[in-house]
Amino acid sequence: MKKDIKKVVLAYSGGLDTSIILKWLQDEYKCEVITFTADIGQGEELEPARRKALSLGVKEENVFIQDLKDEFVKNYVFPMFRANAIYEGEYLLGTSIARPLIAKTLVEIANKTSADAISHGATGKGNDQVRFELGALALNPNLAIIAPWREWDLNSREKLLAYAQKHGIDIAKKPGKSPYSMDANLLHISYEGLVLEDPAAKPEADMWRWVKDPKEAPNESEIIELEFSKGDLCAINGEKMSPAQLLAKLNDLGVKHGIGRLDIVENRYVGMKSRGCYETPGGTILLKAHRAIESITLDREAAHLKDEIMPKYASLIYNGYWFSPERLMLQALIDESQKYVNGKVKLELYKGNVMVIGRESANDSLFSEAYCTFEEDSVYDQKDAAGFIRLNALRFIIAGKNGRKF
Amino acid sequence: MKKDIKKVVLAYSGGLDTSIILKWLQDEYKCEVITFTADIGQGEELEPARRKALSLGVKEENVFIQDLKDEFVKNYVFPMFRANAIYEGEYLLGTSIARPLIAKTLVEIANKTSADAISHGATGKGNDQVRFELGALALNPNLAIIAPWREWDLNSREKLLAYAQKHGIDIAKKPGKSPYSMDANLLHISYEGLVLEDPAAKPEADMWRWVKDPKEAPNESEIIELEFSKGDLCAINGEKMSPAQLLAKLNDLGVKHGIGRLDIVENRYVGMKSRGCYETPGGTILLKAHRAIESITLDREAAHLKDEIMPKYASLIYNGYWFSPERLMLQALIDESQKYVNGKVKLELYKGNVMVIGRESANDSLFSEAYCTFEEDSVYDQKDAAGFIRLNALRFIIAGKNGRKF
Amino acid sequence: MKKDIKKVVLAYSGGLDTSIILKWLQDEYKCEVITFTADIGQGEELEPARRKALSLGVKEENVFIQDLKDEFVKNYVFPMFRANAIYEGEYLLGTSIARPLIAKTLVEIANKTSADAISHGATGKGNDQVRFELGALALNPNLAIIAPWREWDLNSREKLLAYAQKHGIDIAKKPGKSPYSMDANLLHISYEGLVLEDPAAKPEADMWRWVKDPKEAPNESEIIELEFSKGDLCAINGEKMSPAQLLAKLNDLGVKHGIGRLDIVENRYVGMKSRGCYETPGGTILLKAHRAIESITLDREAAHLKDEIMPKYASLIYNGYWFSPERLMLQALIDESQKYVNGKVKLELYKGNVMVIGRESANDSLFSEAYCTFEEDSVYDQKDAAGFIRLNALRFIIAGKNGRKF
Amino acid sequence: MKKDIKKVVLAYSGGLDTSIILKWLQDEYKCEVITFTADIGQGEELEPARRKALSLGVKEENVFIQDLKDEFVKNYVFPMFRANAIYEGEYLLGTSIARPLIAKTLVEIANKTSADAISHGATGKGNDQVRFELGALALNPNLAIIAPWREWDLNSREKLLAYAQKHGIDIAKKPGKSPYSMDANLLHISYEGLVLEDPAAKPEADMWRWVKDPKEAPNESEIIELEFSKGDLCAINGEKMSPAQLLAKLNDLGVKHGIGRLDIVENRYVGMKSRGCYETPGGTILLKAHRAIESITLDREAAHLKDEIMPKYASLIYNGYWFSPERLMLQALIDESQKYVNGKVKLELYKGNVMVIGRESANDSLFSEAYCTFEEDSVYDQKDAAGFIRLNALRFIIAGKNGRKF
Repeated sequence: MKKDIKKVVLAYSGGLDTSIILKWLQDEYKCEVITFTADIGQGEELEPARRKALSLGVKEENVFIQDLKDEFVKNYVFPMFRANAIYEGEYLLGTSIARPLIAKTLVEIANKTSADAISHGATGKGNDQVRFELGALALNPNLAIIAPWREWDLNSREKLLAYAQKHGIDIAKKPGKSPYSMDANLLHISYEGLVLEDPAAKPEADMWRWVKDPKEAPNESEIIELEFSKGDLCAINGEKMSPAQLLAKLNDLGVKHGIGRLDIVENRYVGMKSRGCYETPGGTILLKAHRAIESITLDREAAHLKDEIMPKYASLIYNGYWFSPERLMLQALIDESQKYVNGKVKLELYKGNVMVIGRESANDSLFSEAYCTFEEDSVYDQKDAAGFIRLNALRFIIAGKNGRKF
Repeated sequence: MKKDIKKVVLAYSGGLDTSIILKWLQDEYKCEVITFTADIGQGEELEPARRKALSLGVKEENVFIQDLKDEFVKNYVFPMFRANAIYEGEYLLGTSIARPLIAKTLVEIANKTSADAISHGATGKGNDQVRFELGALALNPNLAIIAPWREWDLNSREKLLAYAQKHGIDIAKKPGKSPYSMDANLLHISYEGLVLEDPAAKPEADMWRWVKDPKEAPNESEIIELEFSKGDLCAINGEKMSPAQLLAKLNDLGVKHGIGRLDIVENRYVGMKSRGCYETPGGTILLKAHRAIESITLDREAAHLKDEIMPKYASLIYNGYWFSPERLMLQALIDESQKYVNGKVKLELYKGNVMVIGRESANDSLFSEAYCTFEEDSVYDQKDAAGFIRLNALRFIIAGKNGRKF
Repeated sequence: MKKDIKKVVLAYSGGLDTSIILKWLQDEYKCEVITFTADIGQGEELEPARRKALSLGVKEENVFIQDLKDEFVKNYVFPMFRANAIYEGEYLLGTSIARPLIAKTLVEIANKTSADAISHGATGKGNDQVRFELGALALNPNLAIIAPWREWDLNSREKLLAYAQKHGIDIAKKPGKSPYSMDANLLHISYEGLVLEDPAAKPEADMWRWVKDPKEAPNESEIIELEFSKGDLCAINGEKMSPAQLLAKLNDLGVKHGIGRLDIVENRYVGMKSRGCYETPGGTILLKAHRAIESITLDREAAHLKDEIMPKYASLIYNGYWFSPERLMLQALIDESQKYVNGKVKLELYKGNVMVIGRESANDSLFSEAYCTFEEDSVYDQKDAAGFIRLNALRFIIAGKNGRKF
Repeated sequence: MKKDIKKVVLAYSGGLDTSIILKWLQDEYKCEVITFTADIGQGEELEPARRKALSLGVKEENVFIQDLKDEFVKNYVFPMFRANAIYEGEYLLGTSIARPLIAKTLVEIANKTSADAISHGATGKGNDQVRFELGALALNPNLAIIAPWREWDLNSREKLLAYAQKHGIDIAKKPGKSPYSMDANLLHISYEGLVLEDPAAKPEADMWRWVKDPKEAPNESEIIELEFSKGDLCAINGEKMSPAQLLAKLNDLGVKHGIGRLDIVENRYVGMKSRGCYETPGGTILLKAHRAIESITLDREAAHLKDEIMPKYASLIYNGYWFSPERLMLQALIDESQKYVNGKVKLELYKGNVMVIGRESANDSLFSEAYCTFEEDSVYDQKDAAGFIRLNALRFIIAGKNGRKF
């Protein structure tokens, strides 16, 4: 029993799957479809999506195309990197972090156009459906959500193609189109499916689309300098740029030097394990550099507290809880820690390696040669250490004298 | 005012500093000195230490030399790697994890020889004094601890050398001896001091002693297979070996392929920041492989719980709390998680890169192609996801309907 | 579309609701119904449930009745109290902790009788459905689960009664039966519904069934002594008893002295807030006493670590994850901490108050008058504190000298 | 070897101990002493302290007396209660939270008067020395700190009295002065020493100075209503007052009804266990009420996150890290959560019991009868729960089908 929907905003890529969904929404729900196509740096032209939408009967005023690249990097990627977020020890959350922005824009367009529903092309087995829908429900719980993959019976490639042909949707594969299930944005590109469904199997060399094979990267290393302001990247090699430009530039550097490929098995929020391959060239560099600038500007206990809450923060983003009180609370904690994270980091890039070779902060370094030098100094009284150790050991001393064994 | 000490066990390397300490203990405390020299894989012969001790007047029965390599890897390194322990996002704890074993052996020898004190050559500014002393006090709180660096006035290189010469201790530098302050064991080698005291300065190329510069590593990659049993490495390329042999073999591989160099600024427990360079060739490979075998055998929430407590566990080891109730509690939690962590991981090593290219577990894989396939399946009902999302979003729905904004 | 079920094990109380379910299962699924009725200390006779089941056509060999009181206290309540578990600062988890035991016994009976499904009478809005089903699926994922409240259309009191009358089920209310939705076991009794659905409204005085109103409790206080062994209660006033007897005895004491009433709004796992009133007389005393015996026998950092993981542990139990790797991991951590938690606690009970008035441990006290006395002592050198403070402050000193403000 | 100090600001109570310190500082350091006496609600007149200081030779302009009661409650007590902070499950941190304010004011006066040191009367065994000194060093690391109890040899009551007599300091005990070591402020009063040094012994009835014995509290209960704004108490029974007035009023209520006595053994930061008795009448009521207003206004995961970080936050305060980056980070997290914590709580006070009997929030309640009712509803689809449970159980299902046992 279908809900009664009058207008739906569809997250529309212009590709085959979302074109089928567009048609299916029109047919099944008999509703007006509004398409939303975002440029978040996935590296595809958007005009073909507009033409396709129009050709499928979407009204001109119902085609929304937006460049979200700077918003994406400034309000999503950068805040996340302040936390040094990594999911399950490896994954830089490239897909996860883009979803709430899509959800937010879908809701904004729905509110503006008085639509009563949103729709997306994520399947019922993945994380993205959760991220889209939790985001949308947090921002406007009155919107209905249509997830065709969970509703329809087009549950195989064959049935999909048959449906497309029946409805006159072009099924010709784009030349060079990858057979993998992919996602891309300014932070990363990902691959799932096919041979990757066997975690013991190595992916084909030509699966990787962005980052050079380290073996084919230049034989000369390259030294770069990243500058940070309050924990955010603000300049590369002395050049200030917009957030999106900075990340694009870092991507170019990573791609060139074979940096940021990753092949993992991860745990999905919906319960199963899943193999994914990722390329996060700029993000991999950024994470290393951010940790390095923190290493001289962040207080020890601030750093440790960040590390302790990071896995939870990363899980929240992975699971789709960007718009949630708990993410905002953790973000407040993280942001509070970043006010002194200012300075420059020098890195050497070479065939897959990102090597920190220097860090400095004009005003905010807590590194004090006077205290750590192996030479004589006048600021630190080594005798203090005796009391420090003795009192830290006092609970062991008392326990031991009482016969307790460790 | 010196304590009245009759017999002291000294952690003795045979080098200049601990030889001076040996002499100083004899002179200042007028006590019998027992020397303890361990082979924990630092790559130095031990017999010279014996000869040196004897030449400084230590009685033959008071010279203790022990090969602790297997105990080190089996009871310290492996348990720590079960936790995927990393300090401050980067450091594999190579120095930290060896200290409790030294402390434990010092205490054992003191107990056996009825000594009333132990002594060590760690300075009053570093972490090692804390690790030695917390360990010793936890194991025998009745032993006195003599930390000459905190007591004497030999607080510069010059005074030390003068003292040595005055007491007939050979101060000739060994040919090729590094000018850096170093520590080495089967897990790693570390460097501090000199140019490293400026965090903006890159270390000299010849500082690094073990791992090949990635640029000079072979142009051909090498594929290896590591096998795990209950979370511990048990075979390399199908060959079972003792724990120490396994780690030594991994070190050879890492060294050859330029793997495991690290240059960081870290936060010491005694309060200051400190620059350190580390080479952990085998450990870097092991960590990557352990995460990979966990990725298919460990339950999601078990993995996340491990990640959440890891920073605390790593800090405990870094700070010297190996022998503590809280480390034992965390270890119990970690070990409980490892019973199914069995299987094999394939890795490709290439110029500093450790790339996972396959993982499998004959009996304990939780990866199920049936559940994650992009093809039609009969085990997963996509409609379940709707309810899952809806109830996870319920608190947002209620909040949103009450007008709360995120 | 109903699943094809041949035999189902029903958690059967003998009351109206589960009797209707029994009938409904027979009618709708045309399957053999096995009833399971447990004595977990809810304070009701079980024989009427047997008679009722037989009268509804259940075969004699299909009626299972078990006394689980000792297993409940020994393997569920006591392990949980080792953790000092409290949900949301207030709730002692009385309902939550009984559910996994019911689930486990349902699965055991299903395995024994080759049943292919289990069924329960929990509604689709509450936590108990989750607890039953997560427990059952963790123990035997091949069993089908029938949750009639989520399936049928008997979604109002009226329809239920009509169904009962139509099928000849006695709907006469037992005299004195509470109109509230209740749950009871040896640890607690709970109330939901009716006036409680307004969180601003005070419950009627006669809602409370067990614990005396503090105002009507005796004017004389009573002093009791509880003895613990490895963190578990083992004797009351010097008398050793079985776990269930101990808890029953504590309940009597709490009931008499008006101890353990609680009126809260809690957050359900399925997403909404819910008002509940609870009486946990013995548990309230036990928690206070357990903390008190820990206060002299547990190491400081062990205690703090327990406190830090407790909220997560409590949520796991509340949410139904008793049988999960993560609960087992946390339990391993907790149990590791309890080996020295031995000794006696004296408490004074008076009109709702549980006051600790003494604690002692013959062999495991870490309390040392020598160290904390205000008199002169010879074991603690107050000068140690200067170094302790100085090094703990070092990061502030360095930051402050660099101009950083707090 | 004494440091060369010209001017020192002493935390001065006017009592015997700090008067001796005053004299001792003048004599030993030959320095100018500035006294600082604060009213933080300890319930003692301050003018005698002024007279005493003047009589001991302190210059008129060097006597500082300040009323800090409102600052104390507004900027220290209230922020802490937003976190529901409890140390080791029991202690409301009454002493701990006052120390940073004293430290801050000492530093302010030192800065204003160009003093080069501060001094305090805390002993070398306790927590307070740490709290004073960490606070002071965080705020001005250039100040020297003089802790006479760690320096002098007046380490017994006898020697102290002899010193006092020798220097003409009046040693007559004030009539009614408690023999216990005490601390008091607007939040609490505490007792240590004497019979309390035996944790098995009950304190004398007349030790308690503030709160009525529950047995002597009124036989009639009293109902009160507390109102909260952004997590802070703002009115009692409809009457708005200043923070200090609110807490004073709550104290009166608690004192009258026998609320807030506590007798515990706690773990000091300097390593030993210590017995303390506390009376926190208003704070005990406030904590209960704050949790109750949160129970209807706070999101579930926000509440759980607060509970998870609370033990760490409480330890920070206990250990003296109020002025630290990590406390500020946690405070940012906590404060972010409190913006909707608005509303009223009704409590019944009776002989030591604080019973919540109602909570409401005009605009910010997340409690929705529509969702939790036992009656039929139209907002919640019970079938959603099936999918919710199924996907939450998926990891168990897969594990179980692979033969894994829990």
